[in-house]
Amino acid sequence: MNKLTGSMNVENVINSALAYSLKVMEKGHSPFEKAIRTMEVPACDAFLTLGTLAPVTFVPGTKVLEPNREIADSFPNSIAASENRILSAGDAMTAKVSRKRVAVLFSGGPAAGGHNVVTGLKQILGSDNTLLGVKAGPKGLLTGNMFEITDEHVQQIMNTGGFNFMGSDRTKIEKPEDIDKVKTVCREHGIDAIVIIGGDDSNTNAALLAEKLFSGVKEDGSGVQVIGVPKTIDGDLQHGDELPISFGFDTATKIYAEEVGNILRDTASSLKYWHFIRLMGRSASHVTLEVALQTHPTIALISEEVRECNITLAEIVDSIANTVIWRAKKGMNYGVVLVPEGLIEFIPGFTTMIDDLNDKMAQFKDELGGKNIREQLLFMYSKLTQSHGELLESLPDSIKYKLMADRDEHGNLPVSQIETEIMLSDAVKAKIIELDATVKFASLNHFFGYEARCGASTVFDSSYTYNLGATAGSLILDGRTGYMASMTDLDNGAKPLGIPIASLLDIEIRKGKPAKVIEKALVKLDSPAFIYFESRRRLWAENDLSNSPGPIQLWGPTSRQLPKTVALNREYQSLDFKFNTALEGNLP
Amino acid sequence: MNKLTGSMNVENVINSALAYSLKVMEKGHSPFEKAIRTMEVPACDAFLTLGTLAPVTFVPGTKVLEPNREIADSFPNSIAASENRILSAGDAMTAKVSRKRVAVLFSGGPAAGGHNVVTGLKQILGSDNTLLGVKAGPKGLLTGNMFEITDEHVQQIMNTGGFNFMGSDRTKIEKPEDIDKVKTVCREHGIDAIVIIGGDDSNTNAALLAEKLFSGVKEDGSGVQVIGVPKTIDGDLQHGDELPISFGFDTATKIYAEEVGNILRDTASSLKYWHFIRLMGRSASHVTLEVALQTHPTIALISEEVRECNITLAEIVDSIANTVIWRAKKGMNYGVVLVPEGLIEFIPGFTTMIDDLNDKMAQFKDELGGKNIREQLLFMYSKLTQSHGELLESLPDSIKYKLMADRDEHGNLPVSQIETEIMLSDAVKAKIIELDATVKFASLNHFFGYEARCGASTVFDSSYTYNLGATAGSLILDGRTGYMASMTDLDNGAKPLGIPIASLLDIEIRKGKPAKVIEKALVKLDSPAFIYFESRRRLWAENDLSNSPGPIQLWGPTSRQLPKTVALNREYQSLDFKFNTALEGNLP
Repeated sequence: MNKLTGSMNVENVINSALAYSLKVMEKGHSPFEKAIRTMEVPACDAFLTLGTLAPVTFVPGTKVLEPNREIADSFPNSIAASENRILSAGDAMTAKVSRKRVAVLFSGGPAAGGHNVVTGLKQILGSDNTLLGVKAGPKGLLTGNMFEITDEHVQQIMNTGGFNFMGSDRTKIEKPEDIDKVKTVCREHGIDAIVIIGGDDSNTNAALLAEKLFSGVKEDGSGVQVIGVPKTIDGDLQHGDELPISFGFDTATKIYAEEVGNILRDTASSLKYWHFIRLMGRSASHVTLEVALQTHPTIALISEEVRECNITLAEIVDSIANTVIWRAKKGMNYGVVLVPEGLIEFIPGFTTMIDDLNDKMAQFKDELGGKNIREQLLFMYSKLTQSHGELLESLPDSIKYKLMADRDEHGNLPVSQIETEIMLSDAVKAKIIELDATVKFASLNHFFGYEARCGASTVFDSSYTYNLGATAGSLILDGRTGYMASMTDLDNGAKPLGIPIASLLDIEIRKGKPAKVIEKALVKLDSPAFIYFESRRRLWAENDLSNSPGPIQLWGPTSRQLPKTVALNREYQSLDFKFNTALEGNLP
Repeated sequence: MNKLTGSMNVENVINSALAYSLKVMEKGHSPFEKAIRTMEVPACDAFLTLGTLAPVTFVPGTKVLEPNREIADSFPNSIAASENRILSAGDAMTAKVSRKRVAVLFSGGPAAGGHNVVTGLKQILGSDNTLLGVKAGPKGLLTGNMFEITDEHVQQIMNTGGFNFMGSDRTKIEKPEDIDKVKTVCREHGIDAIVIIGGDDSNTNAALLAEKLFSGVKEDGSGVQVIGVPKTIDGDLQHGDELPISFGFDTATKIYAEEVGNILRDTASSLKYWHFIRLMGRSASHVTLEVALQTHPTIALISEEVRECNITLAEIVDSIANTVIWRAKKGMNYGVVLVPEGLIEFIPGFTTMIDDLNDKMAQFKDELGGKNIREQLLFMYSKLTQSHGELLESLPDSIKYKLMADRDEHGNLPVSQIETEIMLSDAVKAKIIELDATVKFASLNHFFGYEARCGASTVFDSSYTYNLGATAGSLILDGRTGYMASMTDLDNGAKPLGIPIASLLDIEIRKGKPAKVIEKALVKLDSPAFIYFESRRRLWAENDLSNSPGPIQLWGPTSRQLPKTVALNREYQSLDFKFNTALEGNLP
């Protein structure tokens, strides 16, 4: 690659004034990145009652969570301390708490706003306490890989996207020897508290750590506090008014909405494509639902509805094919179908059928060898359990062939690797040919995913995370452990809360075994967000009512809107959020 | 899909104040879309010399283009009229031109700013002339499918993305019978001029139409004027200072830069992935070069360099693998590789080798039948031409297998359908295992494409296209035909130009036949943009100097920057653009 020929012009170019100014922009110094670092973030009322930023104390509120009995027995320290009560912000903290050493880490996939959790935490702890950043996620907590976070760091990371300030990983600290390692690191580094910024699994892990480090960690017999902060772009870590949404969801869905909105304009411009778009978001369909409310696509599938209403894959394909045909008759040979990443797992019987198919294909490898694919299928119907055989038989041919063909070197077809959007568009194509071969149907497939985890945070996510950080810091200074920082009333002053994490846990079957975990919040069919979606989707399918809501704006008249699903589900009056009731108008 | 159970809550939700306000936002009425419609767009100095918006006259400038002799013979009317001279803006037009009927259409793939070409055109034509919109592209010109564009339409589409106002298609009007159809439609609708908004091929088509409609179309013997407007996100329609860039390039590259910048933050957060990202842009690598200058990825491949420096696929793979290994030794197990869409065609000998392989695989189908893939390859080496056999043999195994395996029902492997990013990441993986199996390498692949063609236009693209529309309208009112509207001096008042299109044509081999076309502008290795890139890329590969330039901002301090490639190549002093020297500061 070093074959470039020289040029007379080289010196002139690289020494020009413009080249100089471009070089100065490197390493996160684009005009945009420079400008967002100095944008002011509003602290909410609770942190400003003394006129300047100050931590709050907490008092047990009236709301009591009801943990699973078996869980309660496993978290005796945490449950006894919290009595399952959610903490509300009380008065400003007047007692001076100093010399606390707090470690903070990112856990799991990145989400916009993580950096502002750190800046809020650092500023509420103030100069009397020390904040340590743990490098490369929970793994760094096992090895004591950490550094002191300074005010200069805060300036550098304020409002920026990504978890790159410290890095992240997916290490789970569960085994007794790992918990011992954490205790040792805490003693060696004099750590009094740990803040874990993560999703449902990371907060489950935080609950366990809080319980195990409750006391007897330090030489004086004291414990180490553990506080969780709710992060995930998937939106599946939420809990009613107490936890309206995890951070990162707003930024990610607005990035996807920008992309999907642009594609919707493209379909109505090119007039010849159906776009099948798979959206990141693991199991739950919150992301797809939010993006649908932002953009009004022709069709948006919601996994939870598929499961609860027992909708088969064949019915999904039929429904899309019929919409394509209906629109074609009206001269609209185009559209957009949103497919949630987790759809496959929600199709009744699909996951267990695939497992059964993997097993039986390995078992009857020799018998399958001489057969063509139709013969193979006929053979397999009888070898699978009756319900699995019937399910496989009911699928569109194109999907059957795909399921028979794609096997990794171990003979498996991992459900997560099925490109659902391609499978669906292929099946829809086959169905349309069957129903009406005169209908034109050209499809393009997309997966929108990683580009939305590390965007610069929206004004909402920046504000929310800064205040979540301040809440986490306040919980620590108030001596609490085993709580998740949260906020309620996002439309009216955003009040800090502490949710006892152990009280959120339940028994869930994971990889065939019962596990004590925070249950993933799924889209509820009786939630206002779904009900509203359901009331509009037919109109969206039959007309061009789409929006292209545009790129996230940090300045100007359109920079402040809550996720629509959150505003609907919390029954807010509008999409406006307000972290500080004293501030007027479009801030910052 | 109509199995939804009822809910007590339904009436409350769909009749809520919030639900009402959400419904009002449908059909392009999101807060963002509403706000951009009312943003003011600056007309450039030339259109404001009378104090109010007014068309300009044109005068032949000193710059003379030198057309291919053979071309000149085919465009006698156009060349005689233009004398190959570029037109510069002269005085404001004082003569009143009225009752002209102008048709405007979109041709080819959509690009941001198309709607503002229409708004600029409409406003410069004023109420004394009539603007007709042709529906669904050039096809609509053959059938007379058009409607009158009103001031209300202008309000509705101002600054919005997409070509959805009228639609587009890829019909080429070349055959004599099609040109006759256009003549008939012009007579029937009383059309005096046609504006074609399109890329290189569409402007080639505009040149042909201008020549054929030069005279004798109307009953009085007069002709129909044809004016082109340079559109394409690919940036391959540009011509020195006379045509600094096509519209849509700025918006598209800034959308890709947002996505790539976010992925760069993601790699430095997750610390474990190499992302291979293929970027739209057909043959030329302008898009990839611009995105590289915006984001500073670990590696960006430039097709034109590959061809000119005769870099083999094996060398590309080696180079990437060695960078991966080098970074791994420094603890950086992550990175981003940008791959231009057209790369494959630029690898020496690759395209003809694939054609040869398709042919010979069909020819020797029976002989290949009983062989395993290694035996098939050995067999094919001897059947291809010597140079093709050697090229195939030199490729990484993973690529060889792919080339042998993937055939469509006609036995072809269309080069354009090779997912280059997947091919490269597979080959790099194999190479790393060969060179140093201890190096961790996990890759993710992406194609960023359609989501960037219909974004809301950047302030630059909005301003540029509005003024291109005003330029096209002025050329018409000044009685010109066969010109492409353009602007020069984008950093200092942006002066309107008319470029004689026929003078830009050259003979190029397309699908094996010589064709008279506008030559696609490729990245020049001696251009300032490439030289600057070349001077920085090693630093980018070895360090984390990346930017995440963020979503396009329409308001605020960062809404106004030219594409970096354009500013460098035009030797501007900064990234600032200025369409109107009287306006100060950050406008609009």
